[in-house]
This record gives sequence, C-alpha cells and structure tokens, in this order.
Amino acid sequence: LTGGEDDLLRWLRRRFNLSLIGDDAAMLPAGGPFVVTVDSQIAGTHFPPGLDPAQVARRLLAVNLSDLAAMGAAPAYAFLALTAPRGFDHRRFFAALLAACVPHRLRLAGGDLSRGPGEGLTATLTLFGTRPRGGTHWLRRAGASAGQRLWLGGTVGESAAGRLLIDRGARLGAGRITLPAGWDDGRGRPRSLAAAARRAVRRHLLPVPQLELGWWLARQAPGAPGAAIDVSDGLARDLHRLCAASGAGARIDAAALPFAAGFVPLCAALGADALELALGGGEDYVLLFTLPAALAPPRRFGCQAIGTITRGHRVSIASVAPFGSGARPLAPSGWDHLTTGPS
Amino acid sequence: LTGGEDDLLRWLRRRFNLSLIGDDAAMLPAGGPFVVTVDSQIAGTHFPPGLDPAQVARRLLAVNLSDLAAMGAAPAYAFLALTAPRGFDHRRFFAALLAACVPHRLRLAGGDLSRGPGEGLTATLTLFGTRPRGGTHWLRRAGASAGQRLWLGGTVGESAAGRLLIDRGARLGAGRITLPAGWDDGRGRPRSLAAAARRAVRRHLLPVPQLELGWWLARQAPGAPGAAIDVSDGLARDLHRLCAASGAGARIDAAALPFAAGFVPLCAALGADALELALGGGEDYVLLFTLPAALAPPRRFGCQAIGTITRGHRVSIASVAPFGSGARPLAPSGWDHLTTGPS
Repeated sequence: LTGGEDDLLRWLRRRFNLSLIGDDAAMLPAGGPFVVTVDSQIAGTHFPPGLDPAQVARRLLAVNLSDLAAMGAAPAYAFLALTAPRGFDHRRFFAALLAACVPHRLRLAGGDLSRGPGEGLTATLTLFGTRPRGGTHWLRRAGASAGQRLWLGGTVGESAAGRLLIDRGARLGAGRITLPAGWDDGRGRPRSLAAAARRAVRRHLLPVPQLELGWWLARQAPGAPGAAIDVSDGLARDLHRLCAASGAGARIDAAALPFAAGFVPLCAALGADALELALGGGEDYVLLFTLPAALAPPRRFGCQAIGTITRGHRVSIASVAPFGSGARPLAPSGWDHLTTGPS
Repeated sequence: LTGGEDDLLRWLRRRFNLSLIGDDAAMLPAGGPFVVTVDSQIAGTHFPPGLDPAQVARRLLAVNLSDLAAMGAAPAYAFLALTAPRGFDHRRFFAALLAACVPHRLRLAGGDLSRGPGEGLTATLTLFGTRPRGGTHWLRRAGASAGQRLWLGGTVGESAAGRLLIDRGARLGAGRITLPAGWDDGRGRPRSLAAAARRAVRRHLLPVPQLELGWWLARQAPGAPGAAIDVSDGLARDLHRLCAASGAGARIDAAALPFAAGFVPLCAALGADALELALGGGEDYVLLFTLPAALAPPRRFGCQAIGTITRGHRVSIASVAPFGSGARPLAPSGWDHLTTGPS
C-alpha cells in the first residue's frame, strides 16, 4: 500500500533527481522563459458528475491559471487532454474553454481526445506561462524568511462550504444557482444566508485566479517578495509546503483569517466548523505569500496579513475565543491527493 | 450528439484560431526552441485494466516519445497527470517511468496526482522536445509534395494483432508473455505462430518510438525530407492526415507494406484480415514520411518505400492478389478517438 502524496514525493526525491519539481509550476529551462503547470479535473473527485461541460471547462482553466498566478506568470499556451464518455458535448466544452482563453490571451496549442471505457470524465490541462510585462523573476515557494509577513490574497473556507452545499444538492445551471431544499424557500432561514450559500457554490465551481496579484508580486524587486503558493489543498497544508520549501516556520493568527461575508453563519447552518474549513477545506485558489514587513500589496487586491514567518520549522496558529486560546501547532490538514481528494 | 474527432477539429477551426494545432507536437513559440505533445493512456481504452503499473508507465512514455520522433525532436522534459484508483501502486509506476526516462535524458519536471472516484486509471503525459544535435528544422505533416516517395519506418498491423490477442486473454507478466489457451501448448499450432503472437503482444504493449529515425530526418537539408507523422491511429487515417496537411494525394502499393515475420499466418489464425489490420489497426508507432526520390534513409532503420505522393487530393491503394487488383480509393479507416478508441 502506498502512503500519501507527500510520502510518495519524498520517496521519489531520494531515488531520482527531481530538482525541477517543487513549485506550483516548473521553470523551463531552469530559470528560463517558460513556466509549466499541469492539473486535472475529474468528475466525482473535483466536481459533481453531470456538471455542464461548459462549467467543467471554465473550472479546469481557472484552477490551472491559479498555478500560473502563484508563479507570477502570464498565460501563454494550453494543451488539453480530455477523456470523456459517449455522448459528452465536446463542442460545448471547447466553445467555453476557448472563449475563456481569449481574455487571458491564452492559445490552445495542442491536445489529445479519448473516449473512456465508462462514464468517467477526466480533463487535464497543461499551461505555459511567460514573464508578465515588467516581471523580473518567478515567484517561488522557497523564498520565505524569518520576519516577513504572511499574506492571503482572499478569503478561505468559502469554496469548501460551497462543496458541502453541492454535496447536498446545490447546482449551477444557466448561470443561476439552485440551493438544496429548505435553503431557498424564504421559510426559517434568513435571505442573507441563501445569498452567502449561492456565493459559496459559485466560488467553488468558478474560482477566480489571482493573476494580477501574482504579476504585482513578480514586479517587486527580486528578493523583495518572499515566497508564494496558491491555496489549493488547504491553507494549513499549503502553508506547511511553503515553510518546508523555505526552511522556515510560521505563526498565523486565527482571528486574522479573512472570511467571506456570511461565512460563519453559513458554516453554522451547514453544521461545519468554520475554522476547520478555512484551514483545511481547500480549493480556495487565493495566493498565500510573504513580503518584507515594510511592504504591503495595494489595497485593490483585498489581501489580508495573517501572520509572520519565523525561524525554525514550527508552524503554529494563535487562537482566541471562539476558537480556543493560545498558540498550538497547526496540523497540515487539507487534501492529500492519494488518500483523499482535490485539488 | 457530436460527430467524430476530425469533424470536431474542423468545427473548432472555423470558430477559433487554432493555428498552432496540426502536427504531432506544437512548436513553441512558433518556430521556437520547444515542441510539446500530450497523450493519455486510459485503462480499458488503450490497455487492459489491471495491467502492471510499470508497463502502463513504459507504454505511456513510448507513445508520447513517438510524437517527438515524428517531429524530429529530442526528449527534454515531462509532466505527468495521473488519476488512479485506491490501491494503485504509485511507487512501481514512478520507478518504471523514471527509469525509462533515463536513457532518453528526459527529466520529469512536474505533475498532478489524483484519486479517481472509481476504478479508472488515466495517465496523461506532456512531453517537451528540443532540437537534436545537428537538427536544422522540425518535421511537419505539411511538407509532402508530388513526386516524393512515401516511406514507413517499420511494420504495420502487428500491434493490432497483439491487441486482438490481449482481448482474448494474452498477458505480459514479469517480462514473459502468456498466450490465450490453445496458442501455447504445442498442440496443433506451429511454434513459429506462438512466437509471432508473443512478438505482437509485446509490440502492442511496449512499442519502440523511432527517435533516431526522426533525428536523421531532421538533419537532412531543410526541405529535403518532406513530411512526417507517426502512425498511431492507423496507416490509412494518418496518411490521409499527412496528405490533407500537405494539400497532396498519395498512391500506396499494398504489396509493399512491411509486415512482421509471421504476421500473415498470425492474422489467419486470429480470423483477421491482414491488410485491414495493416491499414486501420493503428498503434504501430512507426514513422510515415516522405523524401525526394533521390534520397533514401540508411538501411539500419529498416524503412520501406510504400508509395508516392501525387498531385490532387486522391489517396489510393494499388492491390495485387491476394488483396484484389487495381487501384482503389483508400478509406481513412482507423481510430477516431471520439467514436472508437486509441491512440
């Protein structure tokens, strides 16, 4: 039996030269003009079976663009491998994918189409990024150093709340979100809760990659921004990865974590722990990055400082009521792709 | 309902700028230093479910390398996206993949691992190729012109015969091939038939990409080699693609098609039509290419001239007994990935 994903990577690194692997995208050639990333979206793992092919296409693209954002790269070329069952509407899928590429100046440069043996749908996108105008360097996971502040590019946990709603029957169709029975009928639950639920479902299905934030970071003086990663597998797990790559620790403040409007009551209505979703829910697709204490990202990006990079290897979270109090080690909760699910 | 793959591509071309698509790999940037190709291998579509993960890895790599061979490119970087069921032996898969990369100086530069919802196994590899030493240009599908001779880099049909044997129960395990009941017991069938059957199964599961032949073609004076494509979807279909890209026709000679030793009796024993498998069986992974009539590839590559490029758009096959006689139009038989199966 194999262990988790991080175990497998450690085993591979001991046996093989995998020095190109370790960031959200690979730089090719080393330090060279391209970064490359690959991500799959699988029905039943990353999105509900039966999701509109147009939405599958848009989510596939958004998730991959988020990896380019984390490198500070501008989208350039895409390669698609698509395995779809009989009857899949390829034209709807491609029309949506190619239309979504246009505003990003992304060009589909190749692909591979297959019909799978069953009802499964697997879409794998390989994206090439190039340097954005004024970009001086790629963002890496390894650049964090003690004393830097740790920032989040947006709210966390909301996407996971959306996934819980989808598990209970929420759907997006023709641009409108239908909530599970009881959420939308005006009886009992406040209107604001239904609105928060709708936003969460949309956030889950159609994340917005933070490309411009990545470009801003890539335009700072080399060495000024520390490290960057996109939060796909959960804030806690991805923070551990950033710290491990940098040989540093971190201390975050639970009270500083940015939550979407209505997120806490939404979690309560779902019977979910808001902090747990924020730390380990995953699929947030916001950037987690560090900057020298004197530098802050422009307000327009809506970033939030959530903690500090520390010496050593300890990753901890300071909590106040209602989340308990004092600092405790932060477990690397979140998705492991071999033992659980997404990204 | 969508039509076939070539229909879909035509529809996409009418609506979107897909000018980068049309060869076995894409040149990035246009005319630039990289070619990139992506191919998937799916359990139940491209190989039997339950195939040893090491063999899946080796086949995945070989099939993708064949696309680089068709461009005259040298392997450089690989990106893997792997969706596997619970219990899949990732270490066995990766150890085989990485070991197979070494002789090709290919480096794994990134990847994405997922657990699928069911028992499906989908492995998608994106390969980057660079110019081989002395390579002056990329091989294209569009370079054929009337009067050039048409060549095959090796035998066709054998891989499809191997697939028929696998469908009937042949297996490769621990380096040894087990044939279906009745094929291997020394009663009735000659020993040479079992040997041909074993070679066919091995050829199907472990094709050998013709990289050195591709490099030789890429080292000829630009314009000297005409066009090249790898035969993955069937000689007939891939020849039609080469001719369509070149705006030319072709006439091939059925009697000149190279067959593996024992292929014709093997087909007879399988109840299959040898010519049909040779023309439409697919997954041969040999190069189909054109050269000026005065130029022939070195003998060591074992290439065979099979016909001529003609003016116009007609693709025909000249047959003699036992395949009928006279010239007839060659139907683009072979795999369509949306309506049937491989590459």
